[in-house]
Amino acid sequence: MLRTNNCGELREAHVGQEVTICGWVQRIRDKGGRAWIDLRDRYGMTQLMFEEGSTPETLMVLVRTLGREYVIRVKGRVIERLSKNPKLPTGDIEIQVHHLEILNEAALPPFLIEDETDGGDELRMKYRYLDLRRAPVRKNLELRHQVSRKTRAYLDDQEFIEVETPYLIKSTPEGARDFIVPSRMNSRQFYALPQSPQTFKQLLMVSGLDRYYQIVKCFRDEDLRADRQPEFTQIDCEMSFVEQEDILEMFEGLVTFLFKEIKQIDITKFPRITYTDALKYYGSDKPDLRFEMRFVELNEVIGPTDFPLFNAAELVVGINAKNGATYSRKQLDELINFVRKPQVGAAGLIYVKYNLDGSFKSSVDKFFDQDALSTWAKSFEAKPGDLMLILAGKKEQTRKALNELRLEMGDQLKLRTNDKICPVWVIDFPLLEWDEETQRYHAMHHPFTSPKTEYMDQVDTAAPASIKASAYDMVINGVEIGGGSIRIHKKALQSKMFDALGFTKKEAEAQFGFLLGAFEYGAPPHGGIAFGLDRLCSLFGGAESIRDFIAFPKNNSGRDVMIDSPSFLDEEQLTSLGIQQIEKI
Amino acid sequence: MLRTNNCGELREAHVGQEVTICGWVQRIRDKGGRAWIDLRDRYGMTQLMFEEGSTPETLMVLVRTLGREYVIRVKGRVIERLSKNPKLPTGDIEIQVHHLEILNEAALPPFLIEDETDGGDELRMKYRYLDLRRAPVRKNLELRHQVSRKTRAYLDDQEFIEVETPYLIKSTPEGARDFIVPSRMNSRQFYALPQSPQTFKQLLMVSGLDRYYQIVKCFRDEDLRADRQPEFTQIDCEMSFVEQEDILEMFEGLVTFLFKEIKQIDITKFPRITYTDALKYYGSDKPDLRFEMRFVELNEVIGPTDFPLFNAAELVVGINAKNGATYSRKQLDELINFVRKPQVGAAGLIYVKYNLDGSFKSSVDKFFDQDALSTWAKSFEAKPGDLMLILAGKKEQTRKALNELRLEMGDQLKLRTNDKICPVWVIDFPLLEWDEETQRYHAMHHPFTSPKTEYMDQVDTAAPASIKASAYDMVINGVEIGGGSIRIHKKALQSKMFDALGFTKKEAEAQFGFLLGAFEYGAPPHGGIAFGLDRLCSLFGGAESIRDFIAFPKNNSGRDVMIDSPSFLDEEQLTSLGIQQIEKI
Repeated sequence: MLRTNNCGELREAHVGQEVTICGWVQRIRDKGGRAWIDLRDRYGMTQLMFEEGSTPETLMVLVRTLGREYVIRVKGRVIERLSKNPKLPTGDIEIQVHHLEILNEAALPPFLIEDETDGGDELRMKYRYLDLRRAPVRKNLELRHQVSRKTRAYLDDQEFIEVETPYLIKSTPEGARDFIVPSRMNSRQFYALPQSPQTFKQLLMVSGLDRYYQIVKCFRDEDLRADRQPEFTQIDCEMSFVEQEDILEMFEGLVTFLFKEIKQIDITKFPRITYTDALKYYGSDKPDLRFEMRFVELNEVIGPTDFPLFNAAELVVGINAKNGATYSRKQLDELINFVRKPQVGAAGLIYVKYNLDGSFKSSVDKFFDQDALSTWAKSFEAKPGDLMLILAGKKEQTRKALNELRLEMGDQLKLRTNDKICPVWVIDFPLLEWDEETQRYHAMHHPFTSPKTEYMDQVDTAAPASIKASAYDMVINGVEIGGGSIRIHKKALQSKMFDALGFTKKEAEAQFGFLLGAFEYGAPPHGGIAFGLDRLCSLFGGAESIRDFIAFPKNNSGRDVMIDSPSFLDEEQLTSLGIQQIEKI
Repeated sequence: MLRTNNCGELREAHVGQEVTICGWVQRIRDKGGRAWIDLRDRYGMTQLMFEEGSTPETLMVLVRTLGREYVIRVKGRVIERLSKNPKLPTGDIEIQVHHLEILNEAALPPFLIEDETDGGDELRMKYRYLDLRRAPVRKNLELRHQVSRKTRAYLDDQEFIEVETPYLIKSTPEGARDFIVPSRMNSRQFYALPQSPQTFKQLLMVSGLDRYYQIVKCFRDEDLRADRQPEFTQIDCEMSFVEQEDILEMFEGLVTFLFKEIKQIDITKFPRITYTDALKYYGSDKPDLRFEMRFVELNEVIGPTDFPLFNAAELVVGINAKNGATYSRKQLDELINFVRKPQVGAAGLIYVKYNLDGSFKSSVDKFFDQDALSTWAKSFEAKPGDLMLILAGKKEQTRKALNELRLEMGDQLKLRTNDKICPVWVIDFPLLEWDEETQRYHAMHHPFTSPKTEYMDQVDTAAPASIKASAYDMVINGVEIGGGSIRIHKKALQSKMFDALGFTKKEAEAQFGFLLGAFEYGAPPHGGIAFGLDRLCSLFGGAESIRDFIAFPKNNSGRDVMIDSPSFLDEEQLTSLGIQQIEKI
């Protein structure tokens, strides 16, 4: 090694030792007769000291040629610092340097390599290798490594086997957004990159592997939102001879273990809520349970009324913002503006303040007297000092809007803090959902999801939308971090499912014949789950964007601006693959 | 769980317990009044017992409807077996079944699901999910999981961080055999799948990550030999502030640890041999050191002679097959045929038997007397009973042929056994090699490999072929399982290297501009290594083919015959990507 120690490990106990350390010049302070350098590496920062008189003259000259981010190697003696720095683990000591070697020079970086930097997003993406030098960014990668390690530790311990499934697989037009890969050896044919190893992990269950997992890259060629990437990582798991409850327990265990090991947080409750209730009480299948503020439906309480908005509404529903009665007129106006934003989509907002003196002040005082408002307050379990916020309109749209308002109020009342971890299983999803655009049913999770036991025989008889699936999502603090299902394991049922989804027999056979075939040879009951590792890491790291937890992320156009990819190819290279470019239609 | 126990864990201590187990019907023996089923899962095999009288009548009927590979669930009582089977961990007990449920039926499998099967390669590939049910195949996947786990344990312990690098990267026509991926969002542009994360791991060193590893899929679109796959897995590693010796030590440590943990084998010696010596003494840069049989060059010993073959030969070189003098005329003729095979390529073989009585019998007795042969024998350090085998001709070709003969003799004399593990580092590879076809120099490892210190300033001055690189391969039992190098970390040297390889400035900038750029901002000295995980597993498993250690391998045409991939795509799907097919030229 070019060093005897790294920049993070020297302490008072090392005083007097001769050491060699290497690293990057973080900072130089030159006070004429004395100079100090903060030398940085992954492990920490160590102060180097040079002083005229004791430091050789040539070395003093050399020190003055150094710049930020130079890579140097120094030899010297560990000495006690005159003025110690209690904030730094190495703050008790410094190195009295007697030898210095420049390992590599450095141009001035385009932005500051400090915890707080002056570099904008784009610049930092282009020079990602410099951004990764900053401690907060590096710590995100270290956190990711921890999450992966601990995940493997837990699953290994539970007798799961990690199996690598192939990346060059087969395109399924169903998904339509596969990345495809031309094959040189198989003329006119293409591989696809997997959107998930779904069918392979099911085949591993057919093969009797019993418990499988894989931390694996998946690919989706779709338009990217801020928290999506064309390639992303899943913790992909599958188990045999299980029922839904077994999977929920196993992976509650995983998540509880991770929070304990990585954040020293004890998760004590893991409630379950049905999809139907999640929509009814939170307006979302990803409810944020860090705060209560459940929806209260008022249609029955209100009864017949003269208020036209309520009369016309399919649903009148509200929330109780505890201690919100202090909201000013201006604040309430801002809330009204908030719900009217197109992405929220409500026509207006009704508020009822429950004053501390027991009286009510509402935006509908013209239509409802104090008695009526008092009845509403009872439904909301409101107390003096609370603020009731009510929306009315079409059911689905109103719930969606109230969900946005609830989250906004959670933010405003500081109820959504990162130190609270509130997981919930959302269960009993519908098996199928109607798609207006294609005028047919789609699988809500995927075509391999099993109906719940009581609907097992009804796939081809019941009203499709009424069938519930053995499917579950794990939601933490309003973020979906994982989801899965019990799978179909009988060929007959899987065929019916393909029928229900509008596959012809031929299509089903061409695309999933191998799976249908496998089900003929003794497939066990099985089910599984997949977690988004990127999102899980951002949850642990307390950050919004998954991009911060990916070493080399792509931007919203799917570009890696650092290596400048994707890129144009020679025609020759395309020709050798039997393809050529056309203008897109 | 659908079971209380698995099929591998019940013992005498469980006798009397009520249990529920699930699994596959391995075998049914029906002796009229009594029937037994061997029930199999990943964990083992448990015997189920049914007997008329004590077993309910309906259940006896049901048992007789079962077939091989049916998936069943049974409840029963653990009882002691009358005739125990000491070969089976569960052989002391059986289950007296009182409840049986068929979880799934099974068609008759196309081949026997037994350790020894009657299925041919192709059939087993098509039904890979059934082949994986066989214990020897499943054990290969379990072994692979172990190798990955232990590798991570060692590297984590040494402060390496696992970082995921991207799969959608940029094509470098240099390699020419990238798999490419059209981008939907970036019209007319393409990603490429990585042949290795080489440049990314170097950027991670520039970013100060210090120690990186990744167990990662890599892709090469090249014609496949028996032990190649279009996608394969590497253990990819990189370290900063190191010299070659540090890397050799670190990864000797890894391999020693793996053999100890997985095979309980102590590796005590890790010799090093230069590339030049490897060719001189073994005719190969992948020497199998399980046996000595070093090459002995005879040109000087023989001196001037009347034997035309030797006179014309650039190199006369042989091996001493210890105790081979017992070889019959027929056996020697077979060896002559062996060396004449086109893939070996020698014109003929000279042999000298050192008889037990001290005399010599050779195929060149006409040209050389006993004294001459005795001098040869001294060079070979031969003893009575040995057999000397000699080839003559052009240097390179003769060494290559003698390497084949040496390995053949190693096989014939049973010196190449799997219980011996003989690793060696091959070092001091040439930096560049001349390519006749393209009439230019190619990088022997890759363009980022550093020359050895003493050649550092000579890349643009010395005869290119004479420059040695800080590059090393790890070879075990004649198989290359890993290789790496110290990398160039200065921009000026990297530019000279691109010059030497015939890149124009523009090409170098277009393809590797990001790396050259990164080297400007303080790149540390660094180096690394990559191991082929598939090959490492086949070494641990004592098998020839890497395919046995891959869950879903592809065949020699790069096809997955199970899912039938690659496949044809709709024109619509191609059009949406802006490409169309042409006839290949």
